[in-house]
Amino acid sequence: MNNCKNLLFTLLLIIPMVVVKAQISVNQDRLVKRIMDLAQFGIQENGQTERVAFSDADVAAQQWIISQLKEMGLETHIDFAGNVIGIRKGTDASKKPISFGSHIDRVPHGGNYDGCVGSMGSLEVIKVLNENSIKTKHPLEVIIFSNEEGGVMGSRAIAGHLNETAFPVKNSTGYTMGEGMMRLGGDTLRLAEVARKTGDVAAFLELHIEQGGILEKENLDIGIVEGIVGLKWWDVEFKGFANHAGTTPMNARKDALLAAAKFIIAVNEVANSFEGAQVATVGKILAEPGAPNVIPGKVITSLEIRDLSSEVIKNVYDAIVKRASEISQESGVKISFFKSDTTADPAIMDATIQKQIKKSIKSLSLSYKSMPSGAGHDAQDMALITPSGMIFVPSKGGISHSPQEFTSASDMANGANVLLNTILALDKSL
Amino acid sequence: MNNCKNLLFTLLLIIPMVVVKAQISVNQDRLVKRIMDLAQFGIQENGQTERVAFSDADVAAQQWIISQLKEMGLETHIDFAGNVIGIRKGTDASKKPISFGSHIDRVPHGGNYDGCVGSMGSLEVIKVLNENSIKTKHPLEVIIFSNEEGGVMGSRAIAGHLNETAFPVKNSTGYTMGEGMMRLGGDTLRLAEVARKTGDVAAFLELHIEQGGILEKENLDIGIVEGIVGLKWWDVEFKGFANHAGTTPMNARKDALLAAAKFIIAVNEVANSFEGAQVATVGKILAEPGAPNVIPGKVITSLEIRDLSSEVIKNVYDAIVKRASEISQESGVKISFFKSDTTADPAIMDATIQKQIKKSIKSLSLSYKSMPSGAGHDAQDMALITPSGMIFVPSKGGISHSPQEFTSASDMANGANVLLNTILALDKSL
Repeated sequence: MNNCKNLLFTLLLIIPMVVVKAQISVNQDRLVKRIMDLAQFGIQENGQTERVAFSDADVAAQQWIISQLKEMGLETHIDFAGNVIGIRKGTDASKKPISFGSHIDRVPHGGNYDGCVGSMGSLEVIKVLNENSIKTKHPLEVIIFSNEEGGVMGSRAIAGHLNETAFPVKNSTGYTMGEGMMRLGGDTLRLAEVARKTGDVAAFLELHIEQGGILEKENLDIGIVEGIVGLKWWDVEFKGFANHAGTTPMNARKDALLAAAKFIIAVNEVANSFEGAQVATVGKILAEPGAPNVIPGKVITSLEIRDLSSEVIKNVYDAIVKRASEISQESGVKISFFKSDTTADPAIMDATIQKQIKKSIKSLSLSYKSMPSGAGHDAQDMALITPSGMIFVPSKGGISHSPQEFTSASDMANGANVLLNTILALDKSL
Repeated sequence: MNNCKNLLFTLLLIIPMVVVKAQISVNQDRLVKRIMDLAQFGIQENGQTERVAFSDADVAAQQWIISQLKEMGLETHIDFAGNVIGIRKGTDASKKPISFGSHIDRVPHGGNYDGCVGSMGSLEVIKVLNENSIKTKHPLEVIIFSNEEGGVMGSRAIAGHLNETAFPVKNSTGYTMGEGMMRLGGDTLRLAEVARKTGDVAAFLELHIEQGGILEKENLDIGIVEGIVGLKWWDVEFKGFANHAGTTPMNARKDALLAAAKFIIAVNEVANSFEGAQVATVGKILAEPGAPNVIPGKVITSLEIRDLSSEVIKNVYDAIVKRASEISQESGVKISFFKSDTTADPAIMDATIQKQIKKSIKSLSLSYKSMPSGAGHDAQDMALITPSGMIFVPSKGGISHSPQEFTSASDMANGANVLLNTILALDKSL
């Protein structure tokens, strides 16, 4: 009886361990090695990597990824938009693929983690499934999207709304988007064939660094993305009157830069006056004629507003326009707003997928919070054609688009494990 | 006896007419033509002229002036500071030259009259003296000063206080001052040879447009300049932290442009808070990286303060620095002031020369007033080494440093006639 009790006790102790053990995990060291291997493509003498879309380094890195995917037994190709596609077959021929991935192109002077964590994390997920001989009902599709930084080119193409008018836009390599697409192995004339319809993909997941400082500051492992904020851009023009800075008394000036300064402060005050996470930014300014001894007659600034709600963006904009009109009346400087072609509607992540991500996080005993993404991502375009979700991991110091960008090995592994578990859960539930 | 009376009467009638006739005049049409010819150097497709110092247009215009001076029989050269010098010999070898002139370089998007009226007026004076075969005791020296707009480079060099530290400063052509000086035919290594000592020049006169609206508003022909306000320049650097405009919450930003905007407003408020005619201007601004979707990490602006009193300039600057320190503390953006080599002490015009200008104005039956100059001029540096005077003519609408700058033909001719008569009077009295 005592023996029996001991056996029962031992079993009660072992069973949960076995269950925990059954939850497969990514290999953290291998994931870090992949990140470092990828950083070799475009590495400079100063030890930093440059890999703007369409560069030789970008083309070579894509080829390296294809070879990795092939080694892991996936069917691979580059689609007409220059996206790298890898398919791992499913067991149920009636099922559409569960897709996941990110991008490997970088902004100039960018870091090793933006896009790369999600891309290398996706490869690691496949590797772990292979190692554990786990088959899925759904085909699994790895997508490494082309030219994310230059206007989410690859994902826009898959969502079927990449416009030909974007083709002439050059990036810092000197290639236009059209030329760059061809360089990657795409085909501008067959771009329409890349577009997918609703129902073609069962679900989409993207692992990505947060690029803000919230998770680190709150000491959290994972962010569940509620949605990707929409954004709108304007050029704002201030027309005063250029005049001699020595001979024009203070009270006889129509100083366009003084009006622009008041506007920049107003933008900040308006953005802060609303409850919520909306942001408004003036990042660009040009004053003419731009000499120390001339009162500026004309100034042009940018204006960007982002929020998860289009209505909030409109309300912030309206409040800014009202303040601008007051500044114009006081100063005699004419202020005009010119709407830019650069806009993105807010993209809401699928509620069921968000719940599934939360379950995976809990099963891994990680801490988390739900949050919006302030930055644009490929997932926002994928969300137009399939239920989508995003998993954020912390960025050290909130720094991104900089060589100082950093995410720790354990944070990357946590994110990849959440991705892995969510894929397996969705494979069962969808 | 009757005949004798008639003769006497006739003589009394004729003599004043002869005297009046003896007062030679400039040729108004020829002066206007010179202004228009000069405006061809640097003319753009939009009909406006660009001729920033060191530009191809500036170099070509200097060569054109040299050919004009040579045609008029002057000995010409370009000195080591890039000034055009033309000497018309005097009859008394013991006399030092009476010098006069102005500049032909322009601010970006400037007008056809600033500097050009005094330069072309000086050429016209020489032409009229030649036509009337008038010889002077003193040599007459025409000086077309180099790079007036970029810090009265040429006149500072002649006054012997152009500092080498100014050489690396670039203007909008992209050339540094040192490179530009070489382009004009100067020589940075032999600059010291250009400096003149007190006594080397008998007197200096400069004809110039007012660049303010006072003469026009009061319907006066001529301004006799009492003195030129002093000015100081600084570069002001704002160091925040560049970050992603989407992912960085409003309260986590170190926005260098927002701090710069507060500074621009503070400069205006401080200048307005003092009694008097002091002016303070921010004319130049550069934000980095300068993209609509990046929070500016670094901004550089100019700061200029002018007044007839050096003490007032210092007080205004101290008040601005105090406000900048408050802005820096609130925003976490580091603000640093870098004093520019471009400074000018207030310069008082010579009292005797002012009287002589007044006599010339009265002999021409023109209206006038005595006034300070809010703008810096080459005369302020010349005043350091020789008794100097300035003659102002009206600017339409007080507009200057603008393509809309305008001075009428008769106003220009009036000014050139005052210059001519003052030179002749000084030749007799000095």
